[in-house]
Amino acid sequence: MIKAKGYAALSATTPLVPYTFERRDPKEHDVVIDIKFCGICHSDIHMTKDEWKFGSMYPMVPGHEIAGVVSAVGSKVTKFKVGDQVGVGCMVDSCRECTNCKQELENYCIPGSTLTYSAPEKDGSGITQGGYSNVIVTNEDFVLRIPDGLPLDKAAPLLCAGITTYSPLKHWKAGPGTKVGVLGLGGLGHMATKIAVALGAEVTVISHSDKKREDAFKFGAHKFINTKNADEVTANALYFDLIINTVSSADLEMMSLLSLLKLDGSMVNVGAPEKPLSINVFPLLLMRRSLSGSAIGSIKETQEMLNFCAQHKISPEIEVIAPDQVNVAFERVLKSDVRYRFVIDMARL
Amino acid sequence: MIKAKGYAALSATTPLVPYTFERRDPKEHDVVIDIKFCGICHSDIHMTKDEWKFGSMYPMVPGHEIAGVVSAVGSKVTKFKVGDQVGVGCMVDSCRECTNCKQELENYCIPGSTLTYSAPEKDGSGITQGGYSNVIVTNEDFVLRIPDGLPLDKAAPLLCAGITTYSPLKHWKAGPGTKVGVLGLGGLGHMATKIAVALGAEVTVISHSDKKREDAFKFGAHKFINTKNADEVTANALYFDLIINTVSSADLEMMSLLSLLKLDGSMVNVGAPEKPLSINVFPLLLMRRSLSGSAIGSIKETQEMLNFCAQHKISPEIEVIAPDQVNVAFERVLKSDVRYRFVIDMARL
Repeated sequence: MIKAKGYAALSATTPLVPYTFERRDPKEHDVVIDIKFCGICHSDIHMTKDEWKFGSMYPMVPGHEIAGVVSAVGSKVTKFKVGDQVGVGCMVDSCRECTNCKQELENYCIPGSTLTYSAPEKDGSGITQGGYSNVIVTNEDFVLRIPDGLPLDKAAPLLCAGITTYSPLKHWKAGPGTKVGVLGLGGLGHMATKIAVALGAEVTVISHSDKKREDAFKFGAHKFINTKNADEVTANALYFDLIINTVSSADLEMMSLLSLLKLDGSMVNVGAPEKPLSINVFPLLLMRRSLSGSAIGSIKETQEMLNFCAQHKISPEIEVIAPDQVNVAFERVLKSDVRYRFVIDMARL
Repeated sequence: MIKAKGYAALSATTPLVPYTFERRDPKEHDVVIDIKFCGICHSDIHMTKDEWKFGSMYPMVPGHEIAGVVSAVGSKVTKFKVGDQVGVGCMVDSCRECTNCKQELENYCIPGSTLTYSAPEKDGSGITQGGYSNVIVTNEDFVLRIPDGLPLDKAAPLLCAGITTYSPLKHWKAGPGTKVGVLGLGGLGHMATKIAVALGAEVTVISHSDKKREDAFKFGAHKFINTKNADEVTANALYFDLIINTVSSADLEMMSLLSLLKLDGSMVNVGAPEKPLSINVFPLLLMRRSLSGSAIGSIKETQEMLNFCAQHKISPEIEVIAPDQVNVAFERVLKSDVRYRFVIDMARL
């Protein structure tokens, strides 16, 4: 076994604490990764507190925005070698046999992909533990190559915030000639903005205040709508082909937001509020609009996204913190006091 | 002016009463139609009672499932002649200039198509009045040809219940190889079933009791799910490409119903409950599902649907009533006590 150290939640109601544990010795197809950086995703907070009632398992080492360097490989590993810059995202395995897995859509694995932390290992050897730690052992099929030119600290958030926004933008065909709205300018929203701009779409950030107006334009947005100004909302009715909804809150005024979509437009939710949304069906009926959802992206698409970001020189805005600042960072995420993603520097463990 | 008689609601809280009024003399492009039959749609009840808070206008002659015979035509009418069997559906005009109208999608007219009743006429001449009457005068562009072989009484409900289900089935590509669920077996649901079967899809009726199980199979359905049996629902998780939701109620268990959809599946609402739906986004996220809406269909598509129904010998199950039974019929619709559509015989006015 490999000695590992990191930060873990020991229960749903206690802060993260230093924690030592063991990783499995690499199997034939495993890659051992020295974790250099791990991003802090809002869902890490939901999961440590068990707010989604998914049955969080403790002790829980969260973290699924992992960037590091390969330190060892199993005997049959063909895709990676020692010294490679690699990443691990939200999942570390899947059934590999269902209709969706066979189409290389492991993120939609029907029995459920194995999440990077707080999930039972397929081989029964225990519970997965995530990236708030110094080392991880992962099957090579779920390891991503981080291209040259993407620094590891900035690459880390791409493994969740990047792919979660890239995948729906591609699936719903954002590109030249399309008008894309990005609802909420946080960790996901700022990546959605940068990626949609790079894909060639006309991009509008839709926010509930003017606080991030300047940032939106800095990230390449072409327009900005402050939803507190009813006139701005009304003036943009029927404007968008696609809105990526990154806001994890059930308190949105969905009726007016859906009205921003044109005929056959889609609002795609990539965040998951704890409470249900209240949806009046008239805005859906009247312009054949859709309310959809999208969950991260496949391994193949994640690699494509990393290559795309390297090619277009896209990376998240980050604030690098030491591991012992993680509880403070959680508090700041909850107050939206982060521009735009915390990344933990694991060298300081 | 043309003398007309029919049944009207004089307020949101009073029953329909016999009513005499006037129709305009035909303009150059108008068709005068002797109404033979008019279907009773659930939305007639919503509208007479102003339950959608659309600002219903009284006196209101409801009815938008109109079938009759041309009795006169304006000087420039080219599409119809006296004696033709024709129909009028949910709209009688549109702006004809917006992006959607220019694509022949008048049902999604951006300023709003002119509804067949309780809407201001575009020329300012008054309020539109619907088909619970003996005559209507309609611009030829919004008149449909009822093909030979479709009796007028059975053709009437196609003008709303038929097109409202045909349009989403076509738009979401129901056909050979697709699995279609029809939620609710009422006026719309039984047409959705017959049409989806004729389109070549595998069709499952999804209902909250076994009462209509036999009817479902009689209409050609291949499967039946009773949602009261949790096992039947669970066994069909991830089964459908498309569910047409014809149930106008906010009390549906949307989480389990959405779980019936496979990856990229859509639930399309064609009914409009008075209250918002409560939507947990997880079933949307986890399989990239969509919740959509669809509103009737275009004039072009309505004609296509009528031709399709004639060709495939599809027609609704109807109960023909006399005009003076309309208030009783409304009560029975509210109790789902109709198999499957009331049609008013206007000759008995």
